[in-house]
Amino acid sequence: MGPSRSAGFALETHPTEYRHWRLAIEPPLATLTLAVGEESPLVPGYKLKLNSYDLGVDIELADAVVRLRLEHPEVRAVIVTGGLDRVFCAGANIHMLATSTHGFKVNFCKYTNETRLAIEDACAHSGQHYIAACNGTTAGGGYELALACEEIYLVDDGNSAVSLPEVPLLGVLPGTGGLTRVVDKRKVRRDLADVFSTLAEGVKGKRAVEWRLVDGVFPRSRFQEAVRERALELAAGETQPRGPGIALDALAPEVTADAVRYRHVELKLNPGERTAELTIAGPPAGQPGAGADFWPLRAFRELDDALLRLRFHYDEIGVVILKTRGDLEAVRQIDIALYHGREDWLVNEILLLMARTLRRLDLTARSLFAVVDGGSCFAGSLLEVALAADRIYMLRDSAGEVRVASSALNAGLLPMTHGLSRLQVRFMAEPARMQEIAGESEPFDTSAAEEAGLVTAAVDEIDWEDELRVAIEERVSLSPDALTGMEANLRFAGAENLDSKVFGRLSAWQNWIFSRPNATGERGALTLYGKPERPQFNWRRT
Amino acid sequence: MGPSRSAGFALETHPTEYRHWRLAIEPPLATLTLAVGEESPLVPGYKLKLNSYDLGVDIELADAVVRLRLEHPEVRAVIVTGGLDRVFCAGANIHMLATSTHGFKVNFCKYTNETRLAIEDACAHSGQHYIAACNGTTAGGGYELALACEEIYLVDDGNSAVSLPEVPLLGVLPGTGGLTRVVDKRKVRRDLADVFSTLAEGVKGKRAVEWRLVDGVFPRSRFQEAVRERALELAAGETQPRGPGIALDALAPEVTADAVRYRHVELKLNPGERTAELTIAGPPAGQPGAGADFWPLRAFRELDDALLRLRFHYDEIGVVILKTRGDLEAVRQIDIALYHGREDWLVNEILLLMARTLRRLDLTARSLFAVVDGGSCFAGSLLEVALAADRIYMLRDSAGEVRVASSALNAGLLPMTHGLSRLQVRFMAEPARMQEIAGESEPFDTSAAEEAGLVTAAVDEIDWEDELRVAIEERVSLSPDALTGMEANLRFAGAENLDSKVFGRLSAWQNWIFSRPNATGERGALTLYGKPERPQFNWRRT
Repeated sequence: MGPSRSAGFALETHPTEYRHWRLAIEPPLATLTLAVGEESPLVPGYKLKLNSYDLGVDIELADAVVRLRLEHPEVRAVIVTGGLDRVFCAGANIHMLATSTHGFKVNFCKYTNETRLAIEDACAHSGQHYIAACNGTTAGGGYELALACEEIYLVDDGNSAVSLPEVPLLGVLPGTGGLTRVVDKRKVRRDLADVFSTLAEGVKGKRAVEWRLVDGVFPRSRFQEAVRERALELAAGETQPRGPGIALDALAPEVTADAVRYRHVELKLNPGERTAELTIAGPPAGQPGAGADFWPLRAFRELDDALLRLRFHYDEIGVVILKTRGDLEAVRQIDIALYHGREDWLVNEILLLMARTLRRLDLTARSLFAVVDGGSCFAGSLLEVALAADRIYMLRDSAGEVRVASSALNAGLLPMTHGLSRLQVRFMAEPARMQEIAGESEPFDTSAAEEAGLVTAAVDEIDWEDELRVAIEERVSLSPDALTGMEANLRFAGAENLDSKVFGRLSAWQNWIFSRPNATGERGALTLYGKPERPQFNWRRT
Repeated sequence: MGPSRSAGFALETHPTEYRHWRLAIEPPLATLTLAVGEESPLVPGYKLKLNSYDLGVDIELADAVVRLRLEHPEVRAVIVTGGLDRVFCAGANIHMLATSTHGFKVNFCKYTNETRLAIEDACAHSGQHYIAACNGTTAGGGYELALACEEIYLVDDGNSAVSLPEVPLLGVLPGTGGLTRVVDKRKVRRDLADVFSTLAEGVKGKRAVEWRLVDGVFPRSRFQEAVRERALELAAGETQPRGPGIALDALAPEVTADAVRYRHVELKLNPGERTAELTIAGPPAGQPGAGADFWPLRAFRELDDALLRLRFHYDEIGVVILKTRGDLEAVRQIDIALYHGREDWLVNEILLLMARTLRRLDLTARSLFAVVDGGSCFAGSLLEVALAADRIYMLRDSAGEVRVASSALNAGLLPMTHGLSRLQVRFMAEPARMQEIAGESEPFDTSAAEEAGLVTAAVDEIDWEDELRVAIEERVSLSPDALTGMEANLRFAGAENLDSKVFGRLSAWQNWIFSRPNATGERGALTLYGKPERPQFNWRRT
């Protein structure tokens, strides 16, 4: 097993290291200015012209969104704008896309989708309003970035347009939420959305407003000031006390050939078996107050980073064994503290970060088996880690010491992408079970957990190793594609909303298109973009 | 342009011509017995062993479901069972799948999905309860057929199991609703669904009941009687008067090289331009009472057949121009009669059939342009045809004679797959518009239609031909795959339910998997099924 083309790059960064974004803080406003370093692609092989982005650009954006929430809570509105002449953002870099593996493309889109959802999460739950100040060309992923903002303003200079040119120019979809957000979030009339999505040059000026593609246009002379006024207006509506912020230190994991080690999280790789063990240690004794070292914040940031490394650096790992180590009651105590303190801005932010990380887990296209054994501490928020798994194996020890526990956080405070809790999804047939289980103050031993429907298999000590080994061996022998599709369908029972449609409907179609010769074949539109040859299509419709 | 491998077969049939199903009527019960004619595949090249099915088998099932509703309304419960020894149904025929084109596989799955939804529609809205009597092996698509029924009973003989072996055996998904119905409809716990969907041998007996995979098991000795008793019980709960039934005559279109002509519907093909014109004529004068010749029933049955021919026989047609010809007011009068008579069982059935046909249109993967010109009659139910289109072009004639009109049927009586009306989806931003438009008794001339947001473009006479020509030429020049994905995303704004998840999430993933080498490559699992070689997978996860 070799690493993918993208192996090695870091998934964390810091504003002092940004090469593509400038983050300016002037409370209550902040400005995020995109000026992509053309010569600084994440991996060599392409230039990032015209404010086009690659994963490296989005890693910085994701970092900024997190830091704005935790380090700069006094910021109430964030202006996202372009720092190049007459360009807001030209979207994902096509040469990067055209030369990437299928798996990288899919994971790149997934990550950028998650970053956009984090922006919307900040607007909805952190009182930080994002405003896209489209001061020039806003194309493809650039417009998708704008769509993730709460409001979009476009410069009215007779030239600057918003556009989704993927279908006409590249033969692929605006797949980072674009199509879904146009009709579902901005509620653009579907036939106008159809015209818009096939119009390479896009829509500008008054028509962009009439079609609901943007919230307003201003001439260049007063664009900056008008957007700033609007941002101040939105900021003025946010009066809940927030702050002071905390400084997020670097995770800086120790990376070796077969492991990535953080303070509380360890990712151990068994490439020969195509498995990995992801172990989360519970809170050490003597927890500090809410701050960067507070266990839930640090541990879930580490978990998030580990999941991203897994996705981007270790793509042949098929099964991830989810483990925990520590004291069940200590996790519960942290949860209880978070629950009771949830009106506090920082506790709220920590809970939101935990929820986003768990959603990242739900959306990770690997088979997830949670293993509950001696010394594990699947309680409350860590029970959610197990509930995110495709299966939960629990040891039936003779001493009865292996246990799991719930907490108030299991009753909807850490929702999945489609808004339901993991217990709701698990017990679709028995809607009352979520509250029953979340309200249970006693831990569940293996028999009680089995009785409660919390485990897939309760396994006696004598069979434990064999049964686990066989289950894992069977799993890694199956088609990776079939498993990806199966898991994406079984994990999200219940009605779908805008967010989950982006992953469920839009991404699935995009993945299909990415694997079709009309896009990525030798004569496909994505392959030939920017070259003199015209794409050749197989015209059969499916 | 050549026809696909499947060209030529008829999409309609009659019980007297069934080769695979036996339909026995004993009111209030009916029994549908599957005894697939091994030597009667729809097209040559494979044998239909072990009650495995191809499109021909499902065409008969779809026919039976429609006839049970319209011809046999006195039937209140339908038992679906197997007619071979110890086999209920082994699912879709693998050799058929492995030798089909990608497009045929996709459309085959879509059609079987639609048939299963028609069964659920009958259970929900026609008081006809479907019960799956799984009297033997119930595998893959066989179990998916059972899942479409309201209740599932399995014979308890120590051998017969229900199973979804697609992932472990074929490297594809149970994509005809299987995964979705297991967790969303039957509310099987997601981890048990995960185990079940990777277990080639399936689950039988008591465990199948415990896991909610079936509603009950009975020993072989009293299986038939027990299911019959349950069917009679369900039938006894249905007391609304229904009947007498009507006889559905054959559509028997005239098929020539460049057209398919029905009594009210005409499909005209322009293969060189990759376009087709689908024209629906409004009701002729002197309509009979509700019966097989009643215009809405006959016309929508014809439209349904035309759509299926388009999907299966003319897969290189990229754009379908939707037209109508006739008297606006005559359509409205029919609609008004249907609306006021909707408590009558037959009128109800006609409305349900119209709704299913319109959903078939929404789900047809071709670009749909509605053209409203002189002599057209897009009123009410036919306005829904236009509203299903990706775009609506309306002629702005100097005489002001071109008009469209609404009717009470536009206010939710002909819902889309996800339960919303087409006006709701169109006016996501203005929820009050549906009732306003549906309640408008005056027709809309072109300016009024434009004002009301009912048309994409209102075009002056002088520009009409050019503008249409250019729009169509542009459309047919785009990547067919990108268009399929784009249309599937823009047509269904709003929250998704079980039905739409099957098409949106499950089918999209299945299509992706169908196009991946791990399934359909030379060494893919689907390709090699039944052969001595083992599949070889690329292990990278996406």
